[in-house]
Parts: sequence; structure tokens; C-alpha cells
Amino acid sequence: MIVLFTDFGLAGPYTGQVMAVLHREALDIPVVSLFADAPSARPKPSSYLLAAYSAWFPAGTVLLCVVDPGVGSARRAVVAEADGRLYVGPDNGLFDIVMRRAAAARLWEIAWRPGSLSASFHGRDLFAPVAARLAAGETIAALARPAQDESAARAWPDDFAEIVYVDHYGNAMTGLRGAVVPPAARLIAGARKIEPAATFSAVPPGEAFWYVNSNGLAEIAVNGTRADAALGLEIGSPVGIDA
Amino acid sequence: MIVLFTDFGLAGPYTGQVMAVLHREALDIPVVSLFADAPSARPKPSSYLLAAYSAWFPAGTVLLCVVDPGVGSARRAVVAEADGRLYVGPDNGLFDIVMRRAAAARLWEIAWRPGSLSASFHGRDLFAPVAARLAAGETIAALARPAQDESAARAWPDDFAEIVYVDHYGNAMTGLRGAVVPPAARLIAGARKIEPAATFSAVPPGEAFWYVNSNGLAEIAVNGTRADAALGLEIGSPVGIDA
Amino acid sequence: MIVLFTDFGLAGPYTGQVMAVLHREALDIPVVSLFADAPSARPKPSSYLLAAYSAWFPAGTVLLCVVDPGVGSARRAVVAEADGRLYVGPDNGLFDIVMRRAAAARLWEIAWRPGSLSASFHGRDLFAPVAARLAAGETIAALARPAQDESAARAWPDDFAEIVYVDHYGNAMTGLRGAVVPPAARLIAGARKIEPAATFSAVPPGEAFWYVNSNGLAEIAVNGTRADAALGLEIGSPVGIDA
Repeated sequence: MIVLFTDFGLAGPYTGQVMAVLHREALDIPVVSLFADAPSARPKPSSYLLAAYSAWFPAGTVLLCVVDPGVGSARRAVVAEADGRLYVGPDNGLFDIVMRRAAAARLWEIAWRPGSLSASFHGRDLFAPVAARLAAGETIAALARPAQDESAARAWPDDFAEIVYVDHYGNAMTGLRGAVVPPAARLIAGARKIEPAATFSAVPPGEAFWYVNSNGLAEIAVNGTRADAALGLEIGSPVGIDA
Repeated sequence: MIVLFTDFGLAGPYTGQVMAVLHREALDIPVVSLFADAPSARPKPSSYLLAAYSAWFPAGTVLLCVVDPGVGSARRAVVAEADGRLYVGPDNGLFDIVMRRAAAARLWEIAWRPGSLSASFHGRDLFAPVAARLAAGETIAALARPAQDESAARAWPDDFAEIVYVDHYGNAMTGLRGAVVPPAARLIAGARKIEPAATFSAVPPGEAFWYVNSNGLAEIAVNGTRADAALGLEIGSPVGIDA
Repeated sequence: MIVLFTDFGLAGPYTGQVMAVLHREALDIPVVSLFADAPSARPKPSSYLLAAYSAWFPAGTVLLCVVDPGVGSARRAVVAEADGRLYVGPDNGLFDIVMRRAAAARLWEIAWRPGSLSASFHGRDLFAPVAARLAAGETIAALARPAQDESAARAWPDDFAEIVYVDHYGNAMTGLRGAVVPPAARLIAGARKIEPAATFSAVPPGEAFWYVNSNGLAEIAVNGTRADAALGLEIGSPVGIDA
């Protein structure tokens, strides 16, 4: 399976062109868009989101990941190999957290180049063909060479005490794994102290609560309304732990 | 074919994870998202929308339907069998209208449970695997047991005199089947009396009109602009018939 | 491959129903949505957008194109054959630019009719079955008859000096092919003179620039923020060339 994690949007032309390349090059392999609204041009929150959500997919999955403020600049094009999954995309930190959490990880720099490479759409011209070839069974070594991991220079923390995503319902995901927050702790966000609860139905309408979401991140919601609007949260809002 | 009717949105992680489960479990069966923006957390308008739109699909279709304010609470997980279609989802009224309008209908409670069930994402963990298995040919009886239909307690009307959906163009669908509105009647909505017309080109620019849409619902539009903005309509706005 | 170019949106019921028809009628042919947010009900900007983006697809591609303010009125249903691609949709100018730029082009009027044709959803009932049959190998002549090209009456220019699309990031595409703008010229838009640049990283944060996008259109962006908001641009905003 090929999984897309991008900030391309679905309605406009970007995801469609990438899908067209994948279908052409890897005919019978299913393609699923996991996120088309990853934090736009922000690799840091995206990195925590990707680590939480890609862990759910089985080994062998190829993830095509593009959140790339520097397209057209000198940043490397890479494949991160982590716990049997292959992540294809720009070397801007997007794969730092995935690699750090893996039992086994290796970074490769993509050496393959397409016949024609646009300045602004490497997702279509470079990353999609590489992802398709990997999904179709080509070896990484045929497309890339071992590369130095430069994540140490970024030194991003193991967990990220900020909002990293606001979903369709207005629920606000943090970059904190549920497992690092004491179960009875309160989260501090939007100038409020927020108690934990197991489900929406466990709190009164209008009340904020936090819980560990279905992919393992601590997430803030309000029963019956949008948490982002009610609490003034957006990607980048700080989150504290009141243990 | 597997058809999705949800309030999950397409861009975020929910539809993608459900698609991944369906592709894994029911490899060669096409999956189509019919609505990913059904009335959010509102089973009642969703029920009328689902009844109108699912009737267009052939017998044998499996519909995975999730509009579920009570995820994690005690509501049952069910399969509604209605006129040869199978609807998989929560027992919160979402299938009431489909079942009432069917020549033959039967309700089943899902007995199958996955190895791991998250508190907040039954769509992925429970309903999607069940839908995939049914689409792949497993019998309902292998996954569920006959259940009592509890729709009488809700006693929702046969047709629903409210706006149940506002589409991408701003057209406002009512919960009234076109067949129950006299063809020459005016609809009352947004404090206006709205005349019927056959097509957009039959009325002057800026004028509101109603018609029977391509799935049989009475729908309100304004030629050349968004009806929701022009008339102040949203999901839940009341609609009257001036016959 | 079947490619969708519409103003239907993805989340609501329209694209899903079209997908269902295509999967049913052309089982194993991949379907890709290129644009589901083409300029709503505006065939003129859509025509330039379609010409730029469809040129990227190989000969043999069938494009199902619906941007149709006149659905239900007397406009013809057509197939435009242009450089080996087949465009199926309404005859309202949407294919004028594609046909004008083609080395070889021919217009056909669709003669085939479905058993049941709704007044408001020709995309599902007429255009999708025709597109599916063409993709599955039926000849155009079996479904349509040669038709007179009436684009001369519209007399749209070769390039269109307006904004024709604003993408997910807020970048504003013009209807000007990059090749017709002198490389050092400034574009005039939103009452500003905008210099060319090769990539985002070549200009300071907050600065506007224009470039030739990955499908050949002159496009306006601002490094680090949305160009539409920063410059007050929307579909239909005029664009000038200061050569």
C-alpha cells in the first residue's frame, strides 16, 4: 500500500497529479490519502503527526510525505527506512521523529532523477515515481545511496508540547504521546486547565477534556462543540502538563 | 461496492484510515465516498439524507455509515438490512428512515469484535472490518445477531421539514421527498415563499426557487448565487409547505 | 485513465456518485480527480485551467469535465477530441482553449441517452456513462455524431489576463501561459508590480513574486503567506504584463 501524507489539499490539482503518477507506475497497488491537510509548510508539527499516524500501518507500507517550505531549494530528497516502512520526501525534519522512535532506521539520499523535474512540484516529479517504484518492489539501493542523518542539528524534542493538528470536528491534537502524560494530569491549553475523560459522553455538554486518541496522541476536545473555537487553539498553540 | 457515508471529512486522517482497512480486508472491491460531510454529529438529518441518496445504489451495496455523537458510549453497533442493501454503523437513528421506507428490512446487532478497539474510532476498528467482510461475502449471521428495532421510541416523521444538507454550491436540501410536496406548492424557508421551477435557467438571476433534486429531495437554490447565504439557511432551518 | 475536472467538490454527494458510475461501467480503469474545485459555474477561467493541466496527461486519457451553469438548459453535450485525449462535458466554452491549442481537434455531439436523465445532474447520468464507455474502448462514433465547433462566437483570447484559480496555499494562477510572458517582465496584479523569481527561497519572507508553475501557467505567490489574502486576488482579478 502507498500512503500519502501531504499539505496538498485534495480538491485542487496536486493530489490528483500525484495519484495519476502512482497509478501509472504502480498499477495495482492501492493508494490511500492519510492526510492531505498536514500542517501547511510546517515540518516540525508534521513530524510528530506523521510518527503517531504512520505507526498504525504495517511494515512494507510506502509513505509519500510532502510538507516542504523549501521546494526548489538545496534540501536533500530522501528515503527514511524505519521499522520496515519506507518514507519518501524532503529532508527537512519531517522524518526526524519517525526515525528516532524506530528500533531500526536508516536514511538514504535519492539519487534517481526524472527526465523532467519542475522547480515547484517535486512531489509529482521526483517523490511519487520513487515511491511507486519502491512499492512495486525496486530496492532502495537502486534509487538512493546511504546518507548522513542530520537530525541532531535540529534537536527536536521527543514529544512536542504544542497543538500539531486541528481535525475536521475542531478537536486539537497535541504533539504529546498519551503515554508520556500521567493519566490523571490536567493539560493546560488556551489558558485553561483541562481534565482527562474517557469519552465525549463522560463530560457535560460544553466542557473541555483531554484523552488519548485512537493513534496515541493526547487530544483536546469539547463535548458538543469545536474545541479550537471554544478554547482559541490552533497549530502552534502551546500545551502544558499540570501533573 | 462499498459506499461511505460519514461526517469524517476527507482531508484529515479518518477517511484515509477507514479506506486503508477496507483495501486491506476487501482487496478488489471498489470503495466510493458518497458523503464525508454528512451533518456533523447529527443522526436525524443524516437519516433522511442517507435514505434519499442510498436508494440510488443497487441491491448488494454495503454502506459504511458513521455519524456518531455517542462514540464510546453504550449505543449498539448494528447492521441494517434494507431492500438488499447492508448499512453498517451505530444504532442512533441513522438507519431509521432507510428501514421504514424499505419493502423488507431487518436489524442486526454486531457481535464480532476486533482484537483491539479504540474508544473513539469505531469507524476504523469495528464498522470498517465488518463492512469489508460483508462486501467480501461473509454472511451477516456470521458477524451479528438479530436485534430489536428501537426506532419507535424516536418516532421520527416520514419526511422532515428542515434543511438537512447544504451542498458545495450553497443549495439547501430539505428532508422532504419531492413526491410529498404538491408540484405547484411554494416552500417557506428563510422567511420567504419560494416558487417551484424546473431548472436554474428557468428563473432570473438572483431569484430563489425549489425543485426535486436528482436524488428525489425537495431542494432550494438561487440562480447565480449561494442559496444558504442569500436566504440565511443552514442545517436545521425549518421548512414549510404553502400548498 | 479517467480524469475528473469539475466544480463538484469532493466531500458532498456529486463526485461520489460519478465515481460509482465510473467504477460500475469501467471496472478496472483508474479514476483520478484532478480538480473538484474548478472555478464554480465559470467555464471561461476553467477553460484555460483545463488546457494547462490536461496537457500533462498522455494521449488516450478520457477527461470528464463538468463546470456547467446551464445544466438543464439547451446547451449541447459534447466530446472534444484533441491531440488524442477525449474531453466529455457540456458545450459551453469549457473545451474552447483545449481545441484551439491542439494540433488535431474534432468536436462531437453526444447522441447516446441514458434510460433516465435527471434535470440537474448530467454529470452522473449522461457524461459519466459516456466517459466510462470511451475509456472502456467504445468508439466515439458509436456514442456521438460530428458537430459544428461554435467557439468562434465566444472568441475567447489565446491567453487570459485574469486570475483563473487560487490554490490550497493561496497561490494565484493566471490564465497566461508562462511562455507568453517575457521572463524578466513584471506582472501587475492587486495594484502591485510583481517581479519574477525562480523559487520561494529566492525571495525574502512576505515578498510577492511570479513564476511559471509546474503546468506552465504564470502564477503569483508570496513567500511565507497566502498571496490571495496579501494581494487581494480572487478568480476574475485582472492581471497585466509590464514588459
